[in-house]
Amino acid sequence: MIVRELAERLGLGVLGDDRATIRGVAPLDRAVATDLSFLANPKYRGQLSTTSAGAVIAPADAAERAPCAVLVSRNPYADFARAAAMFEHRPQRSPGIHASAVIDESATVGAGAHVGPLVFIGARSIIGPGATVGPGCVIGEDCVVGEGAELVARVTLVVRVQIGKRVLIHPGAVLGADGFGLAFDQGGWLKVPQLGGVRIGDDCEIGANTTIDRGAMGDTVLENDVRLDNQIQIAHNVHIGAHTAMAGCSAVAGSARIGRWCLIGGGAGVLGHLEICDKVTITAMSLVTHSIKSPGEYSSGTPLMDNRAWRKSAVRFKQLDELARRG
Amino acid sequence: MIVRELAERLGLGVLGDDRATIRGVAPLDRAVATDLSFLANPKYRGQLSTTSAGAVIAPADAAERAPCAVLVSRNPYADFARAAAMFEHRPQRSPGIHASAVIDESATVGAGAHVGPLVFIGARSIIGPGATVGPGCVIGEDCVVGEGAELVARVTLVVRVQIGKRVLIHPGAVLGADGFGLAFDQGGWLKVPQLGGVRIGDDCEIGANTTIDRGAMGDTVLENDVRLDNQIQIAHNVHIGAHTAMAGCSAVAGSARIGRWCLIGGGAGVLGHLEICDKVTITAMSLVTHSIKSPGEYSSGTPLMDNRAWRKSAVRFKQLDELARRG
Amino acid sequence: MIVRELAERLGLGVLGDDRATIRGVAPLDRAVATDLSFLANPKYRGQLSTTSAGAVIAPADAAERAPCAVLVSRNPYADFARAAAMFEHRPQRSPGIHASAVIDESATVGAGAHVGPLVFIGARSIIGPGATVGPGCVIGEDCVVGEGAELVARVTLVVRVQIGKRVLIHPGAVLGADGFGLAFDQGGWLKVPQLGGVRIGDDCEIGANTTIDRGAMGDTVLENDVRLDNQIQIAHNVHIGAHTAMAGCSAVAGSARIGRWCLIGGGAGVLGHLEICDKVTITAMSLVTHSIKSPGEYSSGTPLMDNRAWRKSAVRFKQLDELARRG
Repeated sequence: MIVRELAERLGLGVLGDDRATIRGVAPLDRAVATDLSFLANPKYRGQLSTTSAGAVIAPADAAERAPCAVLVSRNPYADFARAAAMFEHRPQRSPGIHASAVIDESATVGAGAHVGPLVFIGARSIIGPGATVGPGCVIGEDCVVGEGAELVARVTLVVRVQIGKRVLIHPGAVLGADGFGLAFDQGGWLKVPQLGGVRIGDDCEIGANTTIDRGAMGDTVLENDVRLDNQIQIAHNVHIGAHTAMAGCSAVAGSARIGRWCLIGGGAGVLGHLEICDKVTITAMSLVTHSIKSPGEYSSGTPLMDNRAWRKSAVRFKQLDELARRG
Repeated sequence: MIVRELAERLGLGVLGDDRATIRGVAPLDRAVATDLSFLANPKYRGQLSTTSAGAVIAPADAAERAPCAVLVSRNPYADFARAAAMFEHRPQRSPGIHASAVIDESATVGAGAHVGPLVFIGARSIIGPGATVGPGCVIGEDCVVGEGAELVARVTLVVRVQIGKRVLIHPGAVLGADGFGLAFDQGGWLKVPQLGGVRIGDDCEIGANTTIDRGAMGDTVLENDVRLDNQIQIAHNVHIGAHTAMAGCSAVAGSARIGRWCLIGGGAGVLGHLEICDKVTITAMSLVTHSIKSPGEYSSGTPLMDNRAWRKSAVRFKQLDELARRG
Repeated sequence: MIVRELAERLGLGVLGDDRATIRGVAPLDRAVATDLSFLANPKYRGQLSTTSAGAVIAPADAAERAPCAVLVSRNPYADFARAAAMFEHRPQRSPGIHASAVIDESATVGAGAHVGPLVFIGARSIIGPGATVGPGCVIGEDCVVGEGAELVARVTLVVRVQIGKRVLIHPGAVLGADGFGLAFDQGGWLKVPQLGGVRIGDDCEIGANTTIDRGAMGDTVLENDVRLDNQIQIAHNVHIGAHTAMAGCSAVAGSARIGRWCLIGGGAGVLGHLEICDKVTITAMSLVTHSIKSPGEYSSGTPLMDNRAWRKSAVRFKQLDELARRG
């Protein structure tokens, strides 16, 4: 694809010679003359002037530093995402049901859907038109996979799980397992039945080995365009607002409610029954212990230190109340 | 089921009209006239007086606030768990072995057991009477699944794993993988063989994507009625006492020993070779760095703060020893 | 095996009677007369004098305390690892492809390789000579499994994943899933294509339910002899140096670079785009928030306290800046 064509498809203007041919994408410091690259993070500005890329997507104010054609963008990372998709080779999943799949006779597979090898689909479940159920997936009873959704491989939907349109779920994810409901009685635990389901909105993405439990009563809900990284734990009856993104290994306890456009850092935790309003950022490995009513960035923890120095501060932390009273 | 019948089956007395018909269960604020609800957490007392439920399970001292029949209970959450189980529709797993399952000729499947589609069972493993091995499970060599136990779907028992009676294991759980045993030698790592197994007592529950490694020498052990949520990591040779419950994403390092009736919060960690006595509570995301000899509640970490304020405290944490000496 | 023979195979000298017969291995406090045991951790010195083991591997300076034959070693744990391997019974995996496996016609399975039941192997993937692909594994397109590598069971390699020689991967691990790449645009998220792959060096070990994402551009890389425990998350474009070991539930964010011979504690986190030099130890549940340029041990967090005392310190942590200014 020549640069001019690329720019037209992205709706961007070009500074410099727009006749170079582009065959792939690469970061600034590794790109060659047939690569498209981009500048989004100002930290990499220095690399722009020395890149060997054939063209770059960059903001207007950085364009003059580039030794090649510049596709001028107000949001270079987003435009780069669009451009990269043009060069992506995604494996073809042909419509139809693989001979090794086991499908309950009451289940339905929509037109154009792909059901891969060694898949199980249980009673009354419905696979939408054009959806992909990759190798080794297990879908239990009463589930719905939306139109164009993709379960990459070895995904499990346990029971009463509804997946919206174009949702992408990565391997090892488990949706709709029993929530962790226990009543203490006579010295031991009694299981509380988990009668609800899981509802995932359109355009969500769910990472590898992430778990989303079904509700105790009522459903666990992700609104549209929620993005979950790998190894996230979402407990029963959690509700996550549209456009919220959570990084790897974060976790939300039962019945917590997270707003829209929130960013939850890696390894962060949210206690149960809390509410977090829209547009809240939680930094990595912080623990949210109370509801948050104002947008903004929140943190807990202590900074990384040399272990010897840390030990001294740690001992003093134990004495803090005494020190404060004395002070 | 009418309220009177329900009360009789639960062994509870009724205040108010006991002739209403109940068809399901719901929380106080969403219940309709054919729903049973409950009050356990005092926080929701306000909802009791306005509920539309047909009947509620509640403590005696709250009964007069209810606009409907009250089943009087000393442990409303436990009695509600029993009631909800009466309304639960669990998928039927008919006895027998699915045609797509692959079972080693030296393995044994007990009377009334269900072995689902696309299951593998290895040499010398034994599936107990009435047990369920759901779709996609992999059971390796020398494993035993107890009477009435259920492996929901896609559970892996690697080798030498014994599961007690009525144990419930959720999808993605891996029991009996190699413990993480390494000896450093000549600049690199040497694997230490993991020769032990895993023993899970009766009535345990193990969450989705939880991992329990087998012992290096001797076994990793969960006593009866241990309850593990999702994504928990139990390392080799850990021993967990009866009736202990651990919340999601918590982890226990090698050879640690946890007592009975402990509660381990979400994301909490326990270092290796420690002992925690009975009736200890660890709050969420705390790290246990020494043995605990007295029952009680233990914590580490710092409270959640606005990021700007947190940065100031974090800088001062580094200076704590100096501040204390100066103070 | 008699003690003399064992010592010869390990290249160690013997103190005491070398004619006892050894049939297994056990820890000092549980060993019987036919067991070999070892002393590596000085904490267990007391157990040496009372052990019933038939022989022990121990350092020279502890030998005189032993009531049995001593195989004198400078690295008792490593020599014990070698000895234990002689007594390990590993399940035989006979060469060949199980009838229930589904293998794309463009895939290649090397001489002597074992492909187990209910395995899927996708287009153009290559299984090396003598490799083992255990039951329920899913291997997507364009993957390579090195000579003698073992995927124990239910491992997923998504796409463009290269595994070195003798690598061992435990159940539930997912390698090569999409990295978590998102561009924010017009109020929602745009997926950034993940065009790279994963490269795992020789002799690595990867724990159960661990996830390693493929690179956005370029690859995610583990050099030789990297050892990962269970439930670890490695994000896209991370690079981990040879001989580094990471404990369970630790996580590394995108494009971080970790040196050689590092030890990352359980539950620890490393933020994205950082560099950690060789020979760095991070203690459990610490968060690395900046690059580390000097070898050594680093920590964050606060010590475990009784909850009541902790609450007092926690409140004071919030006031730290004020206290310091006042002080």
